[in-house]
Amino acid sequence: MGEEGTRQTNWAPKMNVPAEFARIARHFAPLAALGGLGLTDDAAIVIPPPGRELVITADTMVDGMHYLQGEPAENVARKLLRVNLSDLAAMGATPLHYLLMLSVPRDTDETWFAGFAQGLASDQTRYGVSLLGGDTTSTPGPITVSVTMFGHVAPGTALRRNGARSGDGLFVTGTVGDGVLGLWALQGKIPDPDGSLAARYRLPEPRLGMALHGIAHAAMDISDGLVQDCGHIARASCVALELEPARVPLTPAGRTAGDDFVTSGVAGGDDYELLLAVPPCNEARLTSVMRRAGISINRIGRFVPGPPDVRGIAPDGTTIALGAGGWSHF
Amino acid sequence: MGEEGTRQTNWAPKMNVPAEFARIARHFAPLAALGGLGLTDDAAIVIPPPGRELVITADTMVDGMHYLQGEPAENVARKLLRVNLSDLAAMGATPLHYLLMLSVPRDTDETWFAGFAQGLASDQTRYGVSLLGGDTTSTPGPITVSVTMFGHVAPGTALRRNGARSGDGLFVTGTVGDGVLGLWALQGKIPDPDGSLAARYRLPEPRLGMALHGIAHAAMDISDGLVQDCGHIARASCVALELEPARVPLTPAGRTAGDDFVTSGVAGGDDYELLLAVPPCNEARLTSVMRRAGISINRIGRFVPGPPDVRGIAPDGTTIALGAGGWSHF
Repeated sequence: MGEEGTRQTNWAPKMNVPAEFARIARHFAPLAALGGLGLTDDAAIVIPPPGRELVITADTMVDGMHYLQGEPAENVARKLLRVNLSDLAAMGATPLHYLLMLSVPRDTDETWFAGFAQGLASDQTRYGVSLLGGDTTSTPGPITVSVTMFGHVAPGTALRRNGARSGDGLFVTGTVGDGVLGLWALQGKIPDPDGSLAARYRLPEPRLGMALHGIAHAAMDISDGLVQDCGHIARASCVALELEPARVPLTPAGRTAGDDFVTSGVAGGDDYELLLAVPPCNEARLTSVMRRAGISINRIGRFVPGPPDVRGIAPDGTTIALGAGGWSHF
Repeated sequence: MGEEGTRQTNWAPKMNVPAEFARIARHFAPLAALGGLGLTDDAAIVIPPPGRELVITADTMVDGMHYLQGEPAENVARKLLRVNLSDLAAMGATPLHYLLMLSVPRDTDETWFAGFAQGLASDQTRYGVSLLGGDTTSTPGPITVSVTMFGHVAPGTALRRNGARSGDGLFVTGTVGDGVLGLWALQGKIPDPDGSLAARYRLPEPRLGMALHGIAHAAMDISDGLVQDCGHIARASCVALELEPARVPLTPAGRTAGDDFVTSGVAGGDDYELLLAVPPCNEARLTSVMRRAGISINRIGRFVPGPPDVRGIAPDGTTIALGAGGWSHF
């Protein structure tokens, strides 16, 4: 068979198998959930908590594209879990389990696997998730890692992108822009004396655990950039959105990143903050939830009647151009 | 942002986005299940059928490794679904939904996406599954496609690898070996006048829909090779297995593939037949189920007391060596 060495494994512990696959079993089997059946079966079993709906998301990261080449494997694993956890946070779901798909070059050494498993273990504990199963293959290309993650919600309470209504305020958690600034810092384009920007890019903090059902009409996490993601929520909800760039909360680094940092559309990439559409009557409850969670919250726009698009509005009410040649720029 | 063009998309239809991602939305959104929320949200919602457990599996295929370079995208999509469906078949699960993760080079043209979506659509109809969501990224490496697939079973009835007991017969569905022979045929190593071998490699037939709970003690699908997969079931069940190579059902092509075709361990790769551990008292029911399904079934070995390993047994009762330097050969 001309393809020896390329066959998938379901991570069953194997005798007489190439060392790298035995290592994978050794590193990953201890991370398995009960339903993962010790990672020795063809599939895993998920028993949703009684009366709950499952929420499922998937994200892939490619070496050198979604993280910088040379990034420690531990960080890669943690970021992979966190970008998926952020999607669950945006849906208002409680995390449960995940499946892991790895495609790695054959010369990937044990240190990488050990570091990757250590990163998974660390964030499994932090976020209360566990490994259900997955697949590993070798690849002649770059390391490519995917997670499919499961969470649960009470029936009918998942937060969607499509619920924003005219009159809702657009709110954002935390600050915007340090994700992409962290990438620039790691690329040596801007200074980062205390490493806080790089840390923000490397290890986003998913905004889990806030009871936003009944408060927000719509939610999503910011990963592609604030302006672009505003466009997603406006189009999904079929309503116009007036974004007020002057209201967008920045850190001191963000405030020095140029007058067009927000309006150009770059700010917000890799931030993993939440965008929320909240009607005025729920603003007090939103503030209360965020205060209890210790997370800052700011209104940065307003949904208004009109075609599903995003318009920039200056403090004096005039229109500001958003994005360079369009606010969609990935 | 130095990474424009590499950001993930959740397949939300987008304005002003690069043509390839708009095309993906166009091709894949029509394949979405109700819980996939039109592929416009951060995550999808799965409501398991009442009183059922979910069974979940994942498989990745890399261009040039799990299928030959130049393979039509339609076949790639169909094989990707089928290898995952085969895992569900091995667990005795009924297929439900899947998530799709694509990493594709930027120069991948519309024809590829259209063909891939056509393949998905074709097998979605055939097997009654639908798309829940997923992720797309670009990659500097080969096309890498992953599916996470969900099925359901009655609680506690999922077939496992670890249930084989001493005294059980080892049975196999269909015939063994044409998968790898099909690969060899496509590589020009052996003749394939009517193309049936190539077809078998390209489009395996998952053995879904048989009610084997209460009949089989253990099950798995053959994907890595018969001898190796026999090892998996023996080790998971912690019991010895006597494999009788002379009993392994072959097609005429398999019978001409050399005396050591079965014992060398190559036969069985990419076959996706089922291995079943069945106690003698259930053999009549097994035969009946398989006859109704129109699938041949043959006993090819027996689980016996002893350490968890596989031993080859000749018709005269003597031991036959299995595998070249060990029966695990991927």
